[in-house]
Amino acid sequence: MKDPTVTDTQTVPVPDIDLLVGSRMTRRQGVTAPLGFRAAGIAAGIKANGKPDLALVFNEGPDLAASAVFTRNQVKAAPVLWSQKVIENRSLRAVILNSGGANACTGPEGFQDTHATAEAVASTLSSWGTETGPVEVAVCSTGLIGERLPMDKVLAGVTEIVHEMGGGLEGGTDAAYAIMTTDTVPKQVALHHTGGWNVGGMAKGAGMLAPSLATMLVVLTTDAKVSAESVDLALRRATARTFDRLDVDGSISTNDTVLLLSSGASQIEVSQAELDAAVFAVCDDLAGQLQNDAEGVTKRIAITVTGAATEDDALVIARSVARDSLVKTALFGSDPNWGRVLAAIGAAPVTIDPDRITVSFNGSPICRNGTGVPGARDVDLSGDRIEVVADLGLGNAEATIRTTDLSHAYVEENSAYSS
Amino acid sequence: MKDPTVTDTQTVPVPDIDLLVGSRMTRRQGVTAPLGFRAAGIAAGIKANGKPDLALVFNEGPDLAASAVFTRNQVKAAPVLWSQKVIENRSLRAVILNSGGANACTGPEGFQDTHATAEAVASTLSSWGTETGPVEVAVCSTGLIGERLPMDKVLAGVTEIVHEMGGGLEGGTDAAYAIMTTDTVPKQVALHHTGGWNVGGMAKGAGMLAPSLATMLVVLTTDAKVSAESVDLALRRATARTFDRLDVDGSISTNDTVLLLSSGASQIEVSQAELDAAVFAVCDDLAGQLQNDAEGVTKRIAITVTGAATEDDALVIARSVARDSLVKTALFGSDPNWGRVLAAIGAAPVTIDPDRITVSFNGSPICRNGTGVPGARDVDLSGDRIEVVADLGLGNAEATIRTTDLSHAYVEENSAYSS
Repeated sequence: MKDPTVTDTQTVPVPDIDLLVGSRMTRRQGVTAPLGFRAAGIAAGIKANGKPDLALVFNEGPDLAASAVFTRNQVKAAPVLWSQKVIENRSLRAVILNSGGANACTGPEGFQDTHATAEAVASTLSSWGTETGPVEVAVCSTGLIGERLPMDKVLAGVTEIVHEMGGGLEGGTDAAYAIMTTDTVPKQVALHHTGGWNVGGMAKGAGMLAPSLATMLVVLTTDAKVSAESVDLALRRATARTFDRLDVDGSISTNDTVLLLSSGASQIEVSQAELDAAVFAVCDDLAGQLQNDAEGVTKRIAITVTGAATEDDALVIARSVARDSLVKTALFGSDPNWGRVLAAIGAAPVTIDPDRITVSFNGSPICRNGTGVPGARDVDLSGDRIEVVADLGLGNAEATIRTTDLSHAYVEENSAYSS
Repeated sequence: MKDPTVTDTQTVPVPDIDLLVGSRMTRRQGVTAPLGFRAAGIAAGIKANGKPDLALVFNEGPDLAASAVFTRNQVKAAPVLWSQKVIENRSLRAVILNSGGANACTGPEGFQDTHATAEAVASTLSSWGTETGPVEVAVCSTGLIGERLPMDKVLAGVTEIVHEMGGGLEGGTDAAYAIMTTDTVPKQVALHHTGGWNVGGMAKGAGMLAPSLATMLVVLTTDAKVSAESVDLALRRATARTFDRLDVDGSISTNDTVLLLSSGASQIEVSQAELDAAVFAVCDDLAGQLQNDAEGVTKRIAITVTGAATEDDALVIARSVARDSLVKTALFGSDPNWGRVLAAIGAAPVTIDPDRITVSFNGSPICRNGTGVPGARDVDLSGDRIEVVADLGLGNAEATIRTTDLSHAYVEENSAYSS
């Protein structure tokens, strides 16, 4: 079986972001920036500390087109198994999300809990006048693996949150707060296209962050008038080049889900290329926000591999460097220990020529043709952003992985998460 | 290309260690425990701090049979390239080893330095009465990648160390000290067989420790009367089941080398099975010593995967768990966060059935058929040894990877190694 973290990206076109000239990006509103969407976030008591833990995103229509990508981890949480099933119809009315528990490794009872949650959302929405079936409701959960959810609190919360949502049009920010776990800030973005349509989104995720075809919990919305096929294409193309190229700790979550819902409420028809560019821009921004707020981060690092024979080769090698504990600890220490980059490249399952590798840190060449250059150890890495570029000298393909350093704070946070 | 860290072990027989009943293991003498070997270790000035940094192991014969396994990292240090070449003859008179510099990524000049070192050892030995060619001298280096060695000090040290070796028969311990880098203790072992023959060994290695077909620097010696083919078989069989199953940080060194030299000086003929068992026992002990002294270690962890379809599957999954930063930080915190073990298993590139996985920590079941059992979070992991056993429920094959936790000390040590 193929490494599930490696995806074939050769057929994914590079988005033409020039199509967005004049458009405006904001970090407010998020999923409720596009017309036709409502959202809410409340504290339902799922988290012991009383913080917000339940979010709802509701599509008023007229369209209900939707697509999703999910974790490739073979151990999938109950809400992932449920949402994979309902998304087959390519149509969603709502997404219910909870933090405070992943509902993963919870057996058939955990799946029944997810089903019951979708049923409760559907019946509550129906009683408020929007006829909804449970198969129109996606479910996402995040938090500790292996614990059942407190279903009394979840179900009471569902009634409350539908009521809450009815009160206003701009609950996007509340929803973004309610899906946070170890995140320190909510992550939202909205793209307002000059043509009069919008794409919005929110995300959570700070650890167990090595998305595989999908990532973390992300809900994207648009009011563009587009087909379900177009929604699906735009989502897959965007995630392959954004979330799939973020790798904080090499650990692939059991709950990763990215959803894109379109309401068509702007009544503006948008081409595939325009939608691709806009969804990519929104995903790229959210991926950057996730990297900025990653667990224990002190350095935001971009590992770029150029001169590869194929884009997949470049990705595999960039990921090998991004996951190397010795590279990550050296960069935490602002130490230009480039030999560790070479060792990580040489250990990757891609054939390379050691004598052709050229590496630079923050634009300064530190190794040429596999051999160190004078002054290599004097490069200043004290800032909070580091760019590592490795050229293989084998071809013209390239790829970038975004990662972070391995710090004391990462160890501290993750040695005391469940207890 | 296949993951270079994954080796086909299906054909490696399990050694019959019952053949060693009555034999005695010690942690003294090391490479000079077998008859026919001399060794020495000195401070040649390669390390700035004045600690011992040059070691020599000399085979007096009558036999000169030798074998070696090397790192599978594609970026190979100059001494690895040299030793790979000379070992083709399956005959070695001596091994010269230095700490204080890896001589990796040093270009053609670095290779010339290795060649010159072998030449100097050969000519000095010849002038002392043992006619030796440079192709009979293996070279090993360890330390920072990317710096040339101070060849004036290396060559002066070679003259001194040959002289030093002439003075006594038991320089094994001095040699073991001279190859240390971040190691805190020297690693030596000797097996004294009841049949009157011996196997000895020494090792260094504390970080960048994820051996691939070979590991770190290890020199093994025996005075058994065995063929070069037998030496080669015994070494490959032993390393596949010992050093290859040690994985401290997933980082594969550019310099890993394991050598086995036989002098035949005991004049005792030994069967392949006996040699296999003895070399395995010595390698197994040294691998345990490496684990005990790994960088930043506070917990010695064994990850065992049982119930796999094949031994390779078991190894790949055990390695996936052993390399997972979230598993390693949780265990550092004595936190039985078993969901992270499940997530790491599900992320491995081997097909599994999540609903059949059973996991125990220190003998206490914490997850059965993919679902947590009551009391799972109460397991006591406060001791300094942790056993994780995951049964896949798919077959009868199993494998164990030895690893360590991810601690503050690991981050501290590795964020300030080169600077």
